[in-house]
Amino acid sequence: MKASTKTLALGLALAIGSGVAAAQVIGKAEDQIRWRQSAMHTQAWSMGRIKANLDGTFNKDQVVEAANVIQAIANSKMGSLYQPGTDSGKGWKNTRVSKDYFSDRENLAKYGGAYVKEANEMAKVAAAGDAGAVKAQFGKLGEACKGCHDKFRQED
Amino acid sequence: MKASTKTLALGLALAIGSGVAAAQVIGKAEDQIRWRQSAMHTQAWSMGRIKANLDGTFNKDQVVEAANVIQAIANSKMGSLYQPGTDSGKGWKNTRVSKDYFSDRENLAKYGGAYVKEANEMAKVAAAGDAGAVKAQFGKLGEACKGCHDKFRQED
Repeated sequence: MKASTKTLALGLALAIGSGVAAAQVIGKAEDQIRWRQSAMHTQAWSMGRIKANLDGTFNKDQVVEAANVIQAIANSKMGSLYQPGTDSGKGWKNTRVSKDYFSDRENLAKYGGAYVKEANEMAKVAAAGDAGAVKAQFGKLGEACKGCHDKFRQED
Repeated sequence: MKASTKTLALGLALAIGSGVAAAQVIGKAEDQIRWRQSAMHTQAWSMGRIKANLDGTFNKDQVVEAANVIQAIANSKMGSLYQPGTDSGKGWKNTRVSKDYFSDRENLAKYGGAYVKEANEMAKVAAAGDAGAVKAQFGKLGEACKGCHDKFRQED
């Protein structure tokens, strides 16, 4: 090992040892696919709840509950459920993730970032309780979801 | 309609009209079963993440992310996904809900209440970031999950 490489390795070890702990990755490929499908369907349920409140009687509590779920899942770093070897395979059903998800990190960060941003804003707007603002933000969040799906989810 | 019944109906209509809006119920039976299975598996993933952080390197951020998901789902009033007609049937797989869920409201409130309480406490403890306290609270939350499953979930 060259001195410079040694220094780098030591530096990394110190960095890891001093608080920059690596995130734990859990689950086999089929678990990860099932969990991400579960989380996405929980998001779909929550979006459906907000839509029902916009189309029918607006119940602020219910919108807040749904928006909080969306926010928590959006911020849960679900990327850890897309480990190598999970680009194909079956959880509840066959994964629809595209190969691009694993190679186009730039767009992934862009679309993923938009989703987190709009989800955080959705929770904020829901807490304020104005139905008109919820409707507008629901549109923006839906666009962020769709953008990522169009890019990284294959058709059935 | 008797006068007293009329008055009651009017009273209810006024109560509903004046802010006590009914929660929107969405989804067909199979949607509700799939959504609740999805939400429960998202909880299982999140519990698994916390456990991995207790068994391995403790990463506070990851524990907070997982605990926030658990809290949001626990507070999402998932009871709305257990409408009449969903005591049997298939979402991702056949539901394992017991008949008691739909008749024993007293125990449902008791076990459900314990789950929400421990989930809220889990998020609080996670945010504080002490691994020992997270471990203790993880145990309490796990007991609350198990209590409800033992009572209201059938074996495969």
